[in-house]
Amino acid sequence: MVQFLGVISDFPYAFYYNEGKPRRVVVWCANDYLAMGQHEKVLNAMTQAITRVGAGAGGTRNISGTNHYHVLLEQCIADLHDKEGALVFSSGYVSNEASISALASHLPECVVFSDAHNHASIIQGIRNSRAHKEIFRHNDPAHLRELLSQYPKDRAKIIVFESVYSMDGDVAPVEVFCDLAEEFNTLTFLDEVHAVGMYGHKGGGIAQRDNQSHRISIIEGTLGKAFGVVGGYIASSADLIDFVRSFASGFIFTTSMPPAVAAAALASIQHLKKSSIERQRHQETVAKVKKRLTKAGIPYMPTPTHIIPIMVGNAHQCKLASDRLLKEHNIYVQPINYPTVPRGTERLRITPSPVHTDEMIDDLIDALKSVWDYLYIKYAA
Amino acid sequence: MVQFLGVISDFPYAFYYNEGKPRRVVVWCANDYLAMGQHEKVLNAMTQAITRVGAGAGGTRNISGTNHYHVLLEQCIADLHDKEGALVFSSGYVSNEASISALASHLPECVVFSDAHNHASIIQGIRNSRAHKEIFRHNDPAHLRELLSQYPKDRAKIIVFESVYSMDGDVAPVEVFCDLAEEFNTLTFLDEVHAVGMYGHKGGGIAQRDNQSHRISIIEGTLGKAFGVVGGYIASSADLIDFVRSFASGFIFTTSMPPAVAAAALASIQHLKKSSIERQRHQETVAKVKKRLTKAGIPYMPTPTHIIPIMVGNAHQCKLASDRLLKEHNIYVQPINYPTVPRGTERLRITPSPVHTDEMIDDLIDALKSVWDYLYIKYAA
Repeated sequence: MVQFLGVISDFPYAFYYNEGKPRRVVVWCANDYLAMGQHEKVLNAMTQAITRVGAGAGGTRNISGTNHYHVLLEQCIADLHDKEGALVFSSGYVSNEASISALASHLPECVVFSDAHNHASIIQGIRNSRAHKEIFRHNDPAHLRELLSQYPKDRAKIIVFESVYSMDGDVAPVEVFCDLAEEFNTLTFLDEVHAVGMYGHKGGGIAQRDNQSHRISIIEGTLGKAFGVVGGYIASSADLIDFVRSFASGFIFTTSMPPAVAAAALASIQHLKKSSIERQRHQETVAKVKKRLTKAGIPYMPTPTHIIPIMVGNAHQCKLASDRLLKEHNIYVQPINYPTVPRGTERLRITPSPVHTDEMIDDLIDALKSVWDYLYIKYAA
Repeated sequence: MVQFLGVISDFPYAFYYNEGKPRRVVVWCANDYLAMGQHEKVLNAMTQAITRVGAGAGGTRNISGTNHYHVLLEQCIADLHDKEGALVFSSGYVSNEASISALASHLPECVVFSDAHNHASIIQGIRNSRAHKEIFRHNDPAHLRELLSQYPKDRAKIIVFESVYSMDGDVAPVEVFCDLAEEFNTLTFLDEVHAVGMYGHKGGGIAQRDNQSHRISIIEGTLGKAFGVVGGYIASSADLIDFVRSFASGFIFTTSMPPAVAAAALASIQHLKKSSIERQRHQETVAKVKKRLTKAGIPYMPTPTHIIPIMVGNAHQCKLASDRLLKEHNIYVQPINYPTVPRGTERLRITPSPVHTDEMIDDLIDALKSVWDYLYIKYAA
């Protein structure tokens, strides 16, 4: 059992159940990036809350479903991002869809400027708002400027983008987009789900790392990736939080998260605000894996983040590679195919964690080489 | 501490935190209808799962986030409704929105026939599908027939309705609607969130009680009310489940529920499939409360269900009554005002549980009379 950094299970080991007898495999594609879903503080907080207040919340946030843990969690999130307030949703998906559709449909004549690579939940939020939208080329400030300049300065506008993109692991030019937002008098909505907990001095994400948090109108995050639990949130000014609280259908008409989930997320954020060893070790493991991949000639996108897309470039081969890693090498990496990524860019998306050991990295590299040879997948030039 | 029916906390007592020192109050408006959120089997299952597999799922259902508990839960739900398959979502809200929008947008030329009192999540699902819709008068088969007869028999159609309506506590004519569905060759989508666990021989809802489950194409339910946890689901044929699994954005692109939440919901459903004492005691408590309200002259809607809307008829008085119940009588009942209910029908929505005692009922009735006198609210004729 791997047992350091407070991780009390044998994650990244997991049991694979699809055959007769469960088989122990190493997970290399989880979004529990820092293994906080297995951290003793988080598990203890969750278990204690169950004992204290039970399994479910028992109602919506407005009717019988607000618990003390929800209130403490929202205060903790607001502080994480140095904002006045925060609002917790069932999931990151819901926080994007509900907040963006509430904002863009209620701000009169609102125009939404959306990055071409934005997540499905953002696209749905914009679509459901029926607001006018403009799609700017991925991470392209020149194109964004061109589109912004076509609208009057006093018209309501929101720029919606992500900090770290899930599938390519690349990072938005946050400061440049904030400059544009100021120049064109525009709100900013930043999805930090693949960054919170992992970047910034207290885990507030890329905006925090780049000293831009105060320039982002609404930061959206998740409790289900680096924080290891489940749920989504926004952090913003008190006024905007009240606005979304009052209008977002997906916030109002739904049962609140179990108090125990809120307690677990609270413990996780509190820990990662103070402890940097997980972030540091995470980046070290990522650097090791990248170095070893380079040496082995396994092709991957050279991302500036913890997400390592190993490129296969063919849907059938990608599926076969994933199957073979699981069956022959006890390594679990899900194939990522169209429509999640464009055709021709099929990949194995590797996400190292602080608790993947050197031995596991050795095994991964050996397994990949073996599969690459067996399936005649192209090596890097 | 109340301690029977396996309930191991002192629910329906809760602590009210909005002042300096937390104060103990009796909750009379929770949707944890059967107190299963405090049942020892449920809490034990949740705690054990945390110890076994951690806090969060670590990914989406398709990428690293499917756990053995999710699979077992879906099998258990399919059996609960005597269907071939089931699919679990983040919440009941998401299960409605995601399933209805996937179905109605992908079935060519689909027309949705929607009850006028349907929940916000259903309305959003229809709206987001962009399908053509017809609203029929609440629980009115004649009007539904009139609308259905305007469309060709071979055109794709879905009738969407609820079994028990949350705010009025009334029940749909399920069998009559199924007859119409057969006559007009129409799919049926039935929201049973306020009925699952509480009606039917194994808690499968009103459709089960009325022997109509096999005639409903898709039954939607929640794990967050009578089952006491959180999450939503649909149960249906294997084909329709696969269809929704493949197309529902709100299912695909979101982190799965924590395995511990799935384990808790599984334990709750398993228990209520076999045990009827909770359902029986629940109905007894509801009958007692209604009888005492009648005797005291407190006006309420005479519902055929467990939901008791006590009518105030004025938003300001409703808020004052709720505040006074909390402050002077340590009784928590949230006021229900516009837009949740129409203006002039403002109410206190009372939801008795099997663990509300005779003494608590006495206190409730005394408190209501005192508040009615103090605020000059109208008594029943």
